[in-house]
Amino acid sequence: MNIVDIINKKRMGEELTKEELEYTIKGFINGDIKDYQISSLLMAICLNDMTDEETSYLTEIMLNSGDKVDLSGVSKIKIDKHSTGGVGDKTTLILLPLVAACGVVAPKMSGRGLGFTGGTVDKFEAIPGFKSELSEEEFIKQVNEVGAADIAQTANLVPADKLLYALRDVTGTVESLPLIASSIMSKKLASGADKIVIDLKVGNGALIKNLDDARRLASIMVNIGKYHGKEVVCFLTDMNQPLGNAIGNSLEVKEAIEVLNNEGPKDIRDLVIVLGTAMVSMGLNISMKEANKLVLEKLRDGSAYKKFEEMVKYQGGNLEGLVISDKVISIKSQKSGFVRSIKTNELGEIVRKLGGGRYEKNDVIDPTVGIVLSVKKGDYLLEDEELVKVYINKKDISAQEIIDCFEIDDSSGGLNPLVYEMVK
Amino acid sequence: MNIVDIINKKRMGEELTKEELEYTIKGFINGDIKDYQISSLLMAICLNDMTDEETSYLTEIMLNSGDKVDLSGVSKIKIDKHSTGGVGDKTTLILLPLVAACGVVAPKMSGRGLGFTGGTVDKFEAIPGFKSELSEEEFIKQVNEVGAADIAQTANLVPADKLLYALRDVTGTVESLPLIASSIMSKKLASGADKIVIDLKVGNGALIKNLDDARRLASIMVNIGKYHGKEVVCFLTDMNQPLGNAIGNSLEVKEAIEVLNNEGPKDIRDLVIVLGTAMVSMGLNISMKEANKLVLEKLRDGSAYKKFEEMVKYQGGNLEGLVISDKVISIKSQKSGFVRSIKTNELGEIVRKLGGGRYEKNDVIDPTVGIVLSVKKGDYLLEDEELVKVYINKKDISAQEIIDCFEIDDSSGGLNPLVYEMVK
Repeated sequence: MNIVDIINKKRMGEELTKEELEYTIKGFINGDIKDYQISSLLMAICLNDMTDEETSYLTEIMLNSGDKVDLSGVSKIKIDKHSTGGVGDKTTLILLPLVAACGVVAPKMSGRGLGFTGGTVDKFEAIPGFKSELSEEEFIKQVNEVGAADIAQTANLVPADKLLYALRDVTGTVESLPLIASSIMSKKLASGADKIVIDLKVGNGALIKNLDDARRLASIMVNIGKYHGKEVVCFLTDMNQPLGNAIGNSLEVKEAIEVLNNEGPKDIRDLVIVLGTAMVSMGLNISMKEANKLVLEKLRDGSAYKKFEEMVKYQGGNLEGLVISDKVISIKSQKSGFVRSIKTNELGEIVRKLGGGRYEKNDVIDPTVGIVLSVKKGDYLLEDEELVKVYINKKDISAQEIIDCFEIDDSSGGLNPLVYEMVK
Repeated sequence: MNIVDIINKKRMGEELTKEELEYTIKGFINGDIKDYQISSLLMAICLNDMTDEETSYLTEIMLNSGDKVDLSGVSKIKIDKHSTGGVGDKTTLILLPLVAACGVVAPKMSGRGLGFTGGTVDKFEAIPGFKSELSEEEFIKQVNEVGAADIAQTANLVPADKLLYALRDVTGTVESLPLIASSIMSKKLASGADKIVIDLKVGNGALIKNLDDARRLASIMVNIGKYHGKEVVCFLTDMNQPLGNAIGNSLEVKEAIEVLNNEGPKDIRDLVIVLGTAMVSMGLNISMKEANKLVLEKLRDGSAYKKFEEMVKYQGGNLEGLVISDKVISIKSQKSGFVRSIKTNELGEIVRKLGGGRYEKNDVIDPTVGIVLSVKKGDYLLEDEELVKVYINKKDISAQEIIDCFEIDDSSGGLNPLVYEMVK
């Protein structure tokens, strides 16, 4: 086998065999195949696509490139939840304790943020003392005792994906549905859960901008799950505005606590109920209706929030220590009208600029900064009414830049549903 | 400007600006832009193409990346001839002295072979003593005194092309018409001729396999010429069988001498007359009819061959010293029928295996080996009649491998014209 022949084959639009994909990935890892050859192949994949079969093979090969988490020490059905990433997405902070309160086991490995969307690990670590780096034994012990745990992805989980992703990031080859699917699914399969619920974000604040791409990505991931004998359910949900009102790590923890206390913004609360219901139904093998009843009950009776406190404490966190900056700026609308659209990813970028996100892997995040929306899409507001509150600390912002993120118009332009569809 | 944005733009099928192309090529040369980013962009170009305007810009940027040959010391119109490369293509050996005998100035920089097609420099160097490494002054002196010279390309001519081509070769990104066109034309423009005649080979022994691609490539090159104010004429010629009968360096010199003596196989002779007529017409600003008369005359009266002797002697070559191996094997057909097709590139590969070509840049060529065809496409032959003579030296061959290069059938399947069309 020869990498140039393999690249040429994909350039001609042909299907690669499992052996060819294996030769390629193994050669890349051991250095026989060069990064400039892999990037050329990745671009050919971006433009000529892969079949579901190729994508399943690629996922399997990536999965086998590193360690797998052994969760056999946890006897119940283990449900993993994944989000493809959006601005203000704090669902995991709420869902893990919520479904654990319902009796479902939710062991979760999360990422750190790099880009305009935050990472769940960073959000949990906004709580002083919260430890995301647990050993596998500590992780399993916590899952057995608390029912939920959130840890940072361990070092040798799917090293092939780490290498490939780093290359894709600098070679314009991020936006390929099969590559995105194999990246997500190899990590999900390696983390040892039995069933997987995926929140696939669609819109101007997400990697996937349109519903057709989202449907195809969901179907690829569900098929990869089938190939590996794992049930995968994908929800296609709207990301044309931030989820909830808060963007920024401490602010998002605060909003998550509100939802856990049966309050908080309607959209994040509704989404948590939908995803939580699916997770509970799959985890306890009960109907969606029964699961929904249980979820609403645990939010109402305070046990979801109690479980959150238990989980945070178990991982060393001190909720009292949560700090939100007291330097608050109110940004006001320059005209009256409906909020017709919100430049979601740009709001995410602004929070990153404030210090709330990373530009380089080793940047230290300032959890105290962020933005809280005072309006959402479709709202009518008057001139001089507040658009957002901005929590700043060390870095300043341009008010105009924030104002420009909001399109204020005579017509609202209609609203998108929160959940477009479910693919399973 | 940012290379990832530029790659993404080409991935989305958009046109790159001159500034973006300049930023890319300069960054690649100085090392700011990495090879893995360039290879990803090259693959995007292979699959999403470039407009003629982009290709002209790219050519110009490549042209300006290195030195240009200054031929202002030669007062007459200088005609450059280029072939895109085919098996058994010894036209340059014949054309340079032929047109010089007609009074046309033909300074030529040729390449060394790397692949299944040989290089003109290697063919000339089969003549013992022949010096291809001349200084620019020696080159100009020879062109002024003899009218023709063939030298190896100098080191710093279009360094951007050298870098790009080396990368394309190992990343499956050779087969892109705009990339092929800019590679050829940047070198032709840098070598300082006034007018350019291109022999664009089409068929199973050429890089370009079909006539549509050849037409497009020709039109791109003619347009690049116009952009730079240089007349370019392309001939699309057949390469579905070796040109002439001889493949292998000394054997090809011998065959070239036959043609220069007004003999030799019909196809190579016909092609030389067509290309020579165009070169003479352009070089002397006379009609094709007048030029054709002159060309035929110089072949007939021996002055073409005389000029060849003069040129070879001037460059230090000793024609008497030409060695062809005396170990000759006759390969015979296993059945009767028409020669329906010939695997041209595979015959080229076999000669390379015999030692007649290079696998690595520094391989030493054995000029004494090769193949001489006893039959051509359309010929009828009987079982046990000779297909080819093989001249071997240090390395052996498989007879069956050679037999398999010839498809012998009840029908000849028709013949292709030698010259498909002229594009100017």
